[in-house]
Amino acid sequence: MATAADADAMRRAIELAARGLGSTSPNPVVGCVITDASGAVVGEGFHQKAGAPHAEVHALSAAGDKARGGTAYVTLEPCNHTGRTGPCSQALLQAGIARVVYAVGDPNPQATGGADTLRAAGVEVEQGLLAKEAEAGNAAWLTSVRLGRPYVLWKYAATLDGRIAAEDGTSRWITSPEARADVHRLRAEADAVVVGSGTARTDDPHLAVRGVEGAVQPLRVVVDTEAEAVRPGARVLDDAAPTLVAVAEDADTAHLGDTDVVRLPRAATGLDIPALLAALHGRGVRSVLLEGGPALAGAFVAAGAVDKVVGYLAPVLLGAGPAALTGGGITTIAEALRLELTETVRIGPDLRISATPKER
Amino acid sequence: MATAADADAMRRAIELAARGLGSTSPNPVVGCVITDASGAVVGEGFHQKAGAPHAEVHALSAAGDKARGGTAYVTLEPCNHTGRTGPCSQALLQAGIARVVYAVGDPNPQATGGADTLRAAGVEVEQGLLAKEAEAGNAAWLTSVRLGRPYVLWKYAATLDGRIAAEDGTSRWITSPEARADVHRLRAEADAVVVGSGTARTDDPHLAVRGVEGAVQPLRVVVDTEAEAVRPGARVLDDAAPTLVAVAEDADTAHLGDTDVVRLPRAATGLDIPALLAALHGRGVRSVLLEGGPALAGAFVAAGAVDKVVGYLAPVLLGAGPAALTGGGITTIAEALRLELTETVRIGPDLRISATPKER
Repeated sequence: MATAADADAMRRAIELAARGLGSTSPNPVVGCVITDASGAVVGEGFHQKAGAPHAEVHALSAAGDKARGGTAYVTLEPCNHTGRTGPCSQALLQAGIARVVYAVGDPNPQATGGADTLRAAGVEVEQGLLAKEAEAGNAAWLTSVRLGRPYVLWKYAATLDGRIAAEDGTSRWITSPEARADVHRLRAEADAVVVGSGTARTDDPHLAVRGVEGAVQPLRVVVDTEAEAVRPGARVLDDAAPTLVAVAEDADTAHLGDTDVVRLPRAATGLDIPALLAALHGRGVRSVLLEGGPALAGAFVAAGAVDKVVGYLAPVLLGAGPAALTGGGITTIAEALRLELTETVRIGPDLRISATPKER
Repeated sequence: MATAADADAMRRAIELAARGLGSTSPNPVVGCVITDASGAVVGEGFHQKAGAPHAEVHALSAAGDKARGGTAYVTLEPCNHTGRTGPCSQALLQAGIARVVYAVGDPNPQATGGADTLRAAGVEVEQGLLAKEAEAGNAAWLTSVRLGRPYVLWKYAATLDGRIAAEDGTSRWITSPEARADVHRLRAEADAVVVGSGTARTDDPHLAVRGVEGAVQPLRVVVDTEAEAVRPGARVLDDAAPTLVAVAEDADTAHLGDTDVVRLPRAATGLDIPALLAALHGRGVRSVLLEGGPALAGAFVAAGAVDKVVGYLAPVLLGAGPAALTGGGITTIAEALRLELTETVRIGPDLRISATPKER
């Protein structure tokens, strides 16, 4: 039976797990807290990077002998397989852990079975404590395992009347410095940042993370169907972060030199979004921050490939100018993409709204 | 020196004042709490209707002899003039009130001077307690006194991407029943509800208040420049509330029969908004709820005649369809109408955002 102390320890493990967002792919984020036999916290850890030790190993190492007879709180079922690191179930047994409390079962068929192994060895095992919170913290990875494609978070910044620029195309700045800094946090948590050719052409964006300590740079992806938007000297081609240009199979990419290019089938307009996501998944990308523009976002909406929406709404009215989303294939109200608000937060003078699609 | 008990009494007076919203025009809303010499609340009142007793008179009447030596907390400076009712300063003196605490000074030159009269008679008078809150509660009336035109609250309902309907024009329903019920509360608090010819033609709206107990029906105003949108049999022409159709000076209104019509000068597009507001002000309208559509809202924005914005944002994406605001005369980002968020509240599944223009 889980106590308030159990919940506190798990909540802390969930916090620790979040520190790995953006650097663990293709692995999940995982946090672990170890308490000794008396219930005192003696070790903490989180998974920092694929190939590096798992959360349990970090926490056990911090706890040392004090782990014996204690409890391990883990946000995800301890793994049972030997990958680049040994199975955590064995590490927990060797450390003499008496009880394991984990939040979410491991859906990965290669890694599952840790709980059974522990139980068979006489460890008390409990599942489900703060499962909802832990799932939310691992939403990107869990979604990518379930759907076999990267998790997609569409981020936009707009006025209250839904505009991303004024009539003459000017848009600096609609949202505040605080909101723009917050976007860098989203980038740092994603494996890849994706924009379309319109944004590449208009904004010449850099797309790397700035101002987030310890951030792993995401893969910068430009969907440039005709290979005409990304020109030599584009900011996205510097060496601040890796870059991939996605083009149509028949596009002429001679001007891109040795830039990493992926050739994909065309859709009715632009590239085939499922093919793009499959290509990214094949490169280990488990989470995508889709930054725009409106036409590319519309293509993702039309493909049913938006898992979360984060809108930065500036308290500004324009009355004219491009809309945040176009061409999602929705023609009548019954087809509207209906979401559920999950969070509303003030970011400086602006509002950040998070929402996820309702099950359809 | 104001105490916590003083603040409690004034907060209560502000709550009482709000009950008069929508029914006191052209007067302000006012609330009053009377405490006896020991500080116990012995009377409460609010101004309910122009021509009916002021808040102080209601509260003094409830307090009776217990008011002697007590304190009166009033949201607005007690009036000093004899209009349809006698001056409140005299009523307070006659009741033997020893101290008067009021939040906001009366900006109306006809009514001001109450504080001086009370002081001259030996009453202890203090101004400014919870002035900001009391001003917010009386924003419509104070704005109308300051600007000499009705206060304008623009209300819109849109998707997260700023659409008010789908590509095919369907819009039932974007927002929830809860949000739509909340709009009826806004209508009940306004003296007039204004829509344009596009809305009249597309939606045949009724515009009366439903579901708000004790509500005074607002004046329904349709801005129908060419007198072509409101046809005989329109729902807005029923007898649920008074109705005014605003048309151009040269419009043919024969088909409107004995409907109340006001003829106004044309602007570059549509009617002259300042002239419309002056006409409404002349009819005693102190607060306007502007309900749409996008073009009329744009004309108000262009005229600098929006004092507050209330947006009902539904967690819905459409990707196509009409925008919430068009034609505000803003062509570049530097001209954007910048607001300050004042409130964000969940209304059912939707979000209600309130904002006021920054001083320019």
